[in-house]
Order: sequence, then structure tokens, then C-alpha cells
Amino acid sequence: MNVLEVCLGDFSYPIHIGAGVMKDPELLMPHIGSGGALIVTNETIATLYLERLEQTLTGQKVATAVVPDGEAYKTLDTLAQIYDALIDNRCGRDVTIIALGGGVIGDMAGFAAATWQRGVRYVQIPTTLLAQVDSSVGGKTAVNHPRGKNMIGAFHQPVCVLADTETLHTLPPRDLRSGIAETIKYGLIRDPDFFDWMETHLPDLVGLDLDLLAEAIRRACQNKADVVAVDEREHGERALLNLGHTFGHAIETGLGHGQWLHGEAVSAGICMAADMSARMGRLRQDAVARINTLFERAGLPRRAPSTVSPDRFLELMAVDKKVLAGNLRLILLNDIGESFITSDFEPELLRATLEICRDSA
Amino acid sequence: MNVLEVCLGDFSYPIHIGAGVMKDPELLMPHIGSGGALIVTNETIATLYLERLEQTLTGQKVATAVVPDGEAYKTLDTLAQIYDALIDNRCGRDVTIIALGGGVIGDMAGFAAATWQRGVRYVQIPTTLLAQVDSSVGGKTAVNHPRGKNMIGAFHQPVCVLADTETLHTLPPRDLRSGIAETIKYGLIRDPDFFDWMETHLPDLVGLDLDLLAEAIRRACQNKADVVAVDEREHGERALLNLGHTFGHAIETGLGHGQWLHGEAVSAGICMAADMSARMGRLRQDAVARINTLFERAGLPRRAPSTVSPDRFLELMAVDKKVLAGNLRLILLNDIGESFITSDFEPELLRATLEICRDSA
Repeated sequence: MNVLEVCLGDFSYPIHIGAGVMKDPELLMPHIGSGGALIVTNETIATLYLERLEQTLTGQKVATAVVPDGEAYKTLDTLAQIYDALIDNRCGRDVTIIALGGGVIGDMAGFAAATWQRGVRYVQIPTTLLAQVDSSVGGKTAVNHPRGKNMIGAFHQPVCVLADTETLHTLPPRDLRSGIAETIKYGLIRDPDFFDWMETHLPDLVGLDLDLLAEAIRRACQNKADVVAVDEREHGERALLNLGHTFGHAIETGLGHGQWLHGEAVSAGICMAADMSARMGRLRQDAVARINTLFERAGLPRRAPSTVSPDRFLELMAVDKKVLAGNLRLILLNDIGESFITSDFEPELLRATLEICRDSA
Repeated sequence: MNVLEVCLGDFSYPIHIGAGVMKDPELLMPHIGSGGALIVTNETIATLYLERLEQTLTGQKVATAVVPDGEAYKTLDTLAQIYDALIDNRCGRDVTIIALGGGVIGDMAGFAAATWQRGVRYVQIPTTLLAQVDSSVGGKTAVNHPRGKNMIGAFHQPVCVLADTETLHTLPPRDLRSGIAETIKYGLIRDPDFFDWMETHLPDLVGLDLDLLAEAIRRACQNKADVVAVDEREHGERALLNLGHTFGHAIETGLGHGQWLHGEAVSAGICMAADMSARMGRLRQDAVARINTLFERAGLPRRAPSTVSPDRFLELMAVDKKVLAGNLRLILLNDIGESFITSDFEPELLRATLEICRDSA
């Protein structure tokens, strides 16, 4: 088992990574107070893991809120269901909310924890690779507005994360690949050795080698934790973590949420960012090729879908929340492992990328 | 004009108190960024003061969300209307939300600011005495759950508060008295000189002497700021600010929200807390009498309504969020200006207070 401490002063917490960490009462019990726990999960994950988690919590007062599965339900309405469960079970400030599921569950349960009685403890038990590498660190919680992803949210740190790699056995292969896209992202942003390591171990990761997956999760989380530690509230450097996301969000919104997985959209988005970086003379063509090859080997898309036109793309990017004071900011690459933030680019270059990095109809 | 600086490190902010402060662009403009402002107000206040505020903001990009007036609308549904206004106007992280109204507007607009894109700036322009003395300090924001007041919320400090005493001219007298109840509370909790001062100046305050009202607001806010500075997240001493509130919330919920004003319920609640403090041998009878007399002179209720039975009262107090780990905590008095928190009391004494401090049917 790996342990990683996310250092945020008073809000520091451990991430336990490994096969079976969800079954270890010693990891979980210290975070459950006299108010007991409310487990928030979805219908799919409840069938697979709820009983296992309830066994770990034997002897505690435990209630459960099971919500529908999917990004389409990451809404204020579903959040209201979680609040109802909290009040039905008379949960006070001493309750611990446990998020059991992927990123959607983590974001919503975390937001419920951030806002229930102005903030209660929560534990994350991410059950997808994407959530294990990405949502475990950073304290971002949110629900979607019908017209914008993650528009409503809060920063709220968990007291503990249990990334149980055994859950990856039941993860659909497409979701595993989506998580690998976010993992590769950390190498590209700031850790060239990790990018090399991913190139070497990709087949074993896709083949569900749990030890290597635990190592990949640890390295991704460490990179994210290093960035978040210096910029918890996303005023500067933290925006680098959004590499591929401004393009990716436009794809997700343009297609309708749920068509492409988040990691798939990010994969295409990163390849688009790489293309644009090369057009600006910042990234070498051989690096662009290496990036595309790695995503291709992982079975991930490298181009935007044909159904989202460049004009629609620009419109969607303008609504994306990374628009600051009217300027579109992009995260681009100087090299593998070296990213930067800019709003200083020729609009024509962006349009060229949108026209070329796009599947033919 | 009075200025009071609320000192909370990085989150410090000024409260400007006086007649006409809302009309001074120099106070407001520094807090409006390139993203402009969204004014959140209600139908009643919009008619009275929206144009005045818009004039102060001449030259800025300003949008408005006008929501229905009243505590009954302090809900997730109304919050969703504010989020819609934010997205309709493409408000990004650089927007400033301005709360123009009483406590309900301040709480909801503040919660929208706390959660829109995980936190944007907000300015409070409280237009009731209650909001001026109470919501100006503390950073509490919230909406109600259908089964519990302020269950959903966040801590989020404003960047500036403008307490314009001119707005008190249009405040219904009953609301003015409700605000006076909260003002008296600060004297009782920790400032005996301020209680004396309130005894002396009560007729002028009720008579709308704006200079004396500004002084009362300043002293109440200073007391609250002193408490909040040492306990921003309500882990300890800050609970003293809830003097009268556990009783008061039970009255409000028992009658149905909107029947009694918040300050009226707090007035009765404080008199009940004083009665119970005397029963426990902590507060002298002459102090109980002084307290009751001052609230009586202010035209405020000193007893619970006959329609809420002691049994119902106990039930409602048990649901109140100040229940911690199953114990009911009460804020009681040793003396005028000296309060304490306890969950160590004989249940019979509480029942006696509930039976005696109650209007006859």
C-alpha cells in the first residue's frame, strides 16, 4: 500500500492507495465521529461495493443516499436528494459524508459536505481511475448548471482518501482509458520522467496490473498535490492542471454531456493544445507526435468530433469558466513536462487548430 | 460616517456605516472588477433602492436578479434563479455579487457568491437594521431546507459592507424593533456598557435618530467582529452569538416561518434563556427583570406563543442544528454582559421555562 500526504496546513490529509484499502477499518474509523456517516453512492456502485463498505463500518451509525448514475444527474436536484437524506437521518455537524463512486459522486458528495450546515467532514473512496488520479487531490467540489459544467461549487478538502485499486476490476475498459488520459496529463504538465514511465508501462496499466496502477495513481496525485499546495484556490499555477480541458469541455458540452467520457475529451483536448503549441512555435513536431502516439496506444481520441464545428467550438470556449475578463486563456506546452498559461495568441492559430484537429464528417 | 474594519487576515473588510453610504461611488467602485456586478435584490427593495444603487454604479456593467420577497423564498429554488441570472449574463469569476436587501437577500446572495465558480466577490448592502447589525459580520451565508433553517450554507466573507442608515426610513416599524432585539443581544452577551447605552437611548433609536442608530450598529458589529475574529468557523466561543436563538428557531419553525419576525423570536428566546439562567441559579432576578423591561419597552415579545406546546418545543429544539452529538447546547447568562455555553442542565428546568415563559392560550 502507498500513502501520500497532501500537505495543506490545517487541511492536510492522507491518500491511501492500494488493493483492498476500502476494507481496512483502521484507515476509515478514525474519521467517523459520534454523528456517524452518510454514504453517498450511485445505483451501479451500490450493487458492487456498498455492502463491502458497510462491513468496514460495522458498529457505526451509517445511512445511505443512493442517487442515479451519470453526469446527467450531477445537478442541484440530485444535490437536494442528498440534503434530504441528511435531514431524514438527522445528520448534524458531526456527520462524516463518504463519497463512494467516481468523479460525479465525489464532486456532489463533496459539495454536499462543503455546504451541509456550512461544512462537515468527508471521506472520498474513488472507484474510477479518473477519480483516483484527479478528484483525490484539490478539494474541488461542484454540480453542473444546465448550461455549464461545474459552475456551482466550493473548495472543500476531504479528511481522507481511500483509492482502492481493486475497484478497477469492475471499471469498464473505456473508463479505465479515460483515467489514463488524465494520468498522462500530469507527465505532460510538469513531470517528463513520469511521461516516459507511462510510455514504458502503458500495456501493463491497461492490462490492470494493480501495483503499477497504484504507482501511477501515486505519481499523478503527488504532481497534483505539489501544484495545489502552492495555489489552493486556483489563482495562478493551478490552472496548468486544466491542460486540454478548455478544448475538452467544449467537446463535452458541444456533444451533450455523457457522449464522450471526460478523459476522452481531455485526450483530444490535449492533442489540440499540442497542435496549437506547435503552430505557435513553442512545441517541437516530434513531441507532438510522441504525445499523439501515446494517446493512440491508450485507445483514446486525438481529434474533436466532426459534429462540433469550429464556430460552435469558439462559442463554447468563450462560455467556459476559464474565460477571465473577456480573454480566453489556454494551457499550452513548451515541451513534454513543461506547460504554460497564455491568453496571448493569434486567433487565426486557434481557428487553424480547430479546423485541422477534427474528425472528417 | 463610521468605518469599522473586520479583521480576518486575508479576508478582512470594511463596514461603512452612515446615512447615504450607498450613494458614494468611492466606497463601492474599488470592489467592482472588469466582470461587472450582479445585484441581487427582492421586489420590495428593488422599487425603493435599485435605481439609487444603479446610479452609484454608473459606467459599470451591471445586471440584476430580482427575487420574491420573504423568508419563504430563501430556498434552493430561488438560489437556482440567481445562478440562472449569473449564467444569462455570462458572469465569470471576476463578477462581484451585490446583495441589496435584508438578511434573506444577504444570506442567499452570499451563498450564491460562495458557490458560483467556487467563490466570487460579494458586497453587502443591508437594508434592515437586523441585517446591518447581524449579517454584516460573520461571513455566514445559507438557504433553508424545507425542514430546517440555514441547513445549507457556507462561510464566505464579503469584500465590503455598506450599512446605509437612510434605508431605515422605509423599514416597517416591526422590522426596526426586530433589529433592535439583535442589537440588545450584543450587550447581553459581552458588553454591559452597551446594554446600559441601549437602555438610555432606546426611545431615540425607535424614533429613527440616524446618528444614534449608526452608533448602535457600529457597537453591535464591533462586538460581533471581536467574537468572530477568534472563532471564524464557530467551533467554540462564537456559539455565544446564538443567545436566544435555539429557543427562537423553535418558535419560528413551530409557528411556520414568517409568522414572527426573526428578532421577535430572538427577543422571546432571550427572555426564556434568562428565565432558565435564573432557575439554574446563575442569573439574578433583578437582571431578568431589567432584560424583560428593555425588550418590553422596545415593543418586543418576551414569551413563546401559546400555540407551540412545550413538547413540540423540545422536539424542535432537538432538530436544531446546535444539537451536537445528541446533546442540546444552550447559551445562558451569568449576568448582563456575561454569557456561557452549556449542555449541563436539568431537563426539568428547561421544561419549567417552556411551560412558564409562554403566552396563555
